[in-house]
Amino acid sequence: MKEQLDFIYKEQKELSTFGGIAALLGWDQMTYMPALGAAERSEQSALISRLAHEKVVSDKLWKAVKTLSDQDNFNKLSKRDKAVVARLEKDLEKARKVPSDFVERMSKTTTLAYTSWQEARQKEKFSVFASDLQKIVKLEKEYCGYINLPGPKYNSLLDGYEEGMTVDKLKNEFYLLKPQLIKLLEKIKSCKVYEKQTSFENKISIEKQRTLCDFIIEKMNLPKDRSRLDVSIHPFTTSMGYDDIRITTNFKHENPLFSFFSTVHEGGHALYELGMPQDEFKNTVISDSPSLGIHESQSRFWENMIARSRDFWDFFYPVFEKTSPAQFKDIDVETWYRYVNQVKPSLIRVEADELTYCLHVILRFEIEIALMEDEITVTELPDIWNEKTNEMLGITPKNDTEGVLQDMHWSGGSFGYFPTYVIGTIYASQLFKKLTEKNPNIYEEIKHGNFKNIHRWLLENIHKYGCLMTADELIKKTCGEGLNSKVFVGYLKDKYSKLYDI
Amino acid sequence: MKEQLDFIYKEQKELSTFGGIAALLGWDQMTYMPALGAAERSEQSALISRLAHEKVVSDKLWKAVKTLSDQDNFNKLSKRDKAVVARLEKDLEKARKVPSDFVERMSKTTTLAYTSWQEARQKEKFSVFASDLQKIVKLEKEYCGYINLPGPKYNSLLDGYEEGMTVDKLKNEFYLLKPQLIKLLEKIKSCKVYEKQTSFENKISIEKQRTLCDFIIEKMNLPKDRSRLDVSIHPFTTSMGYDDIRITTNFKHENPLFSFFSTVHEGGHALYELGMPQDEFKNTVISDSPSLGIHESQSRFWENMIARSRDFWDFFYPVFEKTSPAQFKDIDVETWYRYVNQVKPSLIRVEADELTYCLHVILRFEIEIALMEDEITVTELPDIWNEKTNEMLGITPKNDTEGVLQDMHWSGGSFGYFPTYVIGTIYASQLFKKLTEKNPNIYEEIKHGNFKNIHRWLLENIHKYGCLMTADELIKKTCGEGLNSKVFVGYLKDKYSKLYDI
Repeated sequence: MKEQLDFIYKEQKELSTFGGIAALLGWDQMTYMPALGAAERSEQSALISRLAHEKVVSDKLWKAVKTLSDQDNFNKLSKRDKAVVARLEKDLEKARKVPSDFVERMSKTTTLAYTSWQEARQKEKFSVFASDLQKIVKLEKEYCGYINLPGPKYNSLLDGYEEGMTVDKLKNEFYLLKPQLIKLLEKIKSCKVYEKQTSFENKISIEKQRTLCDFIIEKMNLPKDRSRLDVSIHPFTTSMGYDDIRITTNFKHENPLFSFFSTVHEGGHALYELGMPQDEFKNTVISDSPSLGIHESQSRFWENMIARSRDFWDFFYPVFEKTSPAQFKDIDVETWYRYVNQVKPSLIRVEADELTYCLHVILRFEIEIALMEDEITVTELPDIWNEKTNEMLGITPKNDTEGVLQDMHWSGGSFGYFPTYVIGTIYASQLFKKLTEKNPNIYEEIKHGNFKNIHRWLLENIHKYGCLMTADELIKKTCGEGLNSKVFVGYLKDKYSKLYDI
Repeated sequence: MKEQLDFIYKEQKELSTFGGIAALLGWDQMTYMPALGAAERSEQSALISRLAHEKVVSDKLWKAVKTLSDQDNFNKLSKRDKAVVARLEKDLEKARKVPSDFVERMSKTTTLAYTSWQEARQKEKFSVFASDLQKIVKLEKEYCGYINLPGPKYNSLLDGYEEGMTVDKLKNEFYLLKPQLIKLLEKIKSCKVYEKQTSFENKISIEKQRTLCDFIIEKMNLPKDRSRLDVSIHPFTTSMGYDDIRITTNFKHENPLFSFFSTVHEGGHALYELGMPQDEFKNTVISDSPSLGIHESQSRFWENMIARSRDFWDFFYPVFEKTSPAQFKDIDVETWYRYVNQVKPSLIRVEADELTYCLHVILRFEIEIALMEDEITVTELPDIWNEKTNEMLGITPKNDTEGVLQDMHWSGGSFGYFPTYVIGTIYASQLFKKLTEKNPNIYEEIKHGNFKNIHRWLLENIHKYGCLMTADELIKKTCGEGLNSKVFVGYLKDKYSKLYDI
């Protein structure tokens, strides 16, 4: 078995190396690459994807894993080898269900669809994108056939991002959450504070925004020699390796809130990547998050629970004020805190406040399920989108670009991805509850801009496990229960009743 | 033969793609990578090198090429295919002479040697680096045994950078050049202008230096959507693809001359890369420079012949002046032109002026030959270095770091590389002579900051040929004769006699 073990570790190592290379190709494309480099870059990325995919589906690797997972052999393995072999077997089994020619067809279709999606956005016409989206929906259904999990087709999509998650479980949570969110939103919209609220419209220079972003990631304990912050159109986090994690933000908005909160958000993802198990699990499948929901819980935790809290601004408001005294001269920390947490129904998901954000996601969840179950067709999407937006948020997009065309996910074939944003948000609230119950002095630490114990707690309770457990097992272990949107609703009610005096 | 042709083009394309990926990994390491990312980066680079090398030495590719180069088949090929097959056969034949285990041993040795070189520099002690350098010299000799060209061993090293170049040919040129350079230097050092010369020591902010660099590359016609300028410790040019060429400079010196001239120098390399044959030769071995000397001729051409010329500053001095009026208030264009071209023997090659630069290179050339021929030993190097420096430049390094340890080339196993700097410098003077003879109005265009016709001439006479010819053939075709250091000497005499009134 020595031979097989050596082989599977060697292959995992090489897959990690390919992963780092692919991450760099993608990062550079989004940050520094000259515009016309795109065509050659897509070939570079495709080559690395192909080489990695060939490795994942190679019969030699599969045989080695099957030999090791054979009961008699498996029992003789060390604890570490058992964990790696079991996880690897699951991953490969799933990957091998999907034929290579399908992967190639999907890749070609999404490349074209991305272009037509961009064109459609520019022309504000969904019809330009519709036929490509139809092809993608068809491919998604074909994919579900390969994965073929029990229950609705959508289960097979969900499982790709959130292992073990099902439509039934999610409906339970989301259909509890949705009316509560709408009710709370209605309450807020009809209260006096809401009536009088105005936005913060003072402009802060890019240099000063940059200083604030640099300061918060330093405070969050992102090490300079293992990470960096750059600029891209859409903020993201990517990992070139254990010691090279990169985040981006952008400063296109003259308002500092966008760059600051996206930096905190991506900083949360980055701390997770930086905290992945090294030692015995370095360069193995274990050194990864168990799900996108868990990953998102880390970013939302820092963005919402920490950086949108009242305590946080005790320390940070003076920092903002000092950077740009003129812009803050007429407001105080309390007013600022209210700006930061202002609820206002809006059309674009990525610009939504903490409360309405989840409604944007639930809307997409409902549409994706209906598409998969053939209850609606692609051509009906703009109307359905607008109706649902109006139903949930009380506003209607003026055109498709600020409606059904706003997200790139569908053009990339990422069906089943959206729900992880809300799953992560709920997990974040559960983690914060547990953390503060066990460490009541955390509030005081936040007030002083001290996040060391928070970071340590996340390391000890989430990061260090990698994917030794599923998301569900991990949250149960840490929080004592699985996904529970009631905790999130409680958090929201508590927060907004104070903010809006309701 | 269709099958073989398709195969060799597919393989060349994939090698281009690997080349672009390797370039990005290297560029990022030198520009943005967090410090601790180095270990994983070296594994990423090694993986790509290995995959590319496996392709280059694969028997399948070799068989396909040999089938196509077989006389009967070869005669039936198109002109384009003939060129590609002939070049590819030469390249592969050479690559296949070197065993893979040698490549690996060399790579491991140079990785360690780079570290000991850095340590030696820090401690200012050559002895820290000596034993690694001994290993590298031994490996270089082993390499010469594989390549095994007629004449001195050093021929096999030279050929790796400058195909067809030999020790005999170079000695002819360099031993004509060396006494002329020394004589001219002596003359300058004993003239009145030299006695009175002072350096430009005003500081220009990084932002303003950056503005000047951006302006010159715009003027040189580097397209923004196909290239970019970043910052690294040592300036360099690299190519991620036909439409993604990157150059770097640095602003560590408070004097704007370093960043400006290194930008022009790298800009010259970049224009060459941007001008490589696309159409029928895209992603083939033809789309490459025939030698490092030719590549260097492009950078030196722009740096020395253009940007260090009196005409150039007619246009650019006012630009500098306008950027930082206070720093330039006491000088005029003529004084500035003299600053820019000041001759002053100094210890560091990369900071040397146009005249003494070549002496630095000839010194290395003499040492490398003597090492290969066992006329000297590695341990004697510091003394020999200092003696030769004193002999040629009349000054002596205070320590090994500013002497024998100053360049990284030897730690990387790049023996035979240095001469290409002077070869390129000589070629540049020959190209400028031909260009201006044929287009006397070029001087006037330079005075107006108009480089369009110069760029076009280089495209038409050098760039577009890729490596359809050897360096020697190309220079003969364009300039009517091969490498001729007399042209360069003539250029220097003309320039410096005016500058120093001698």
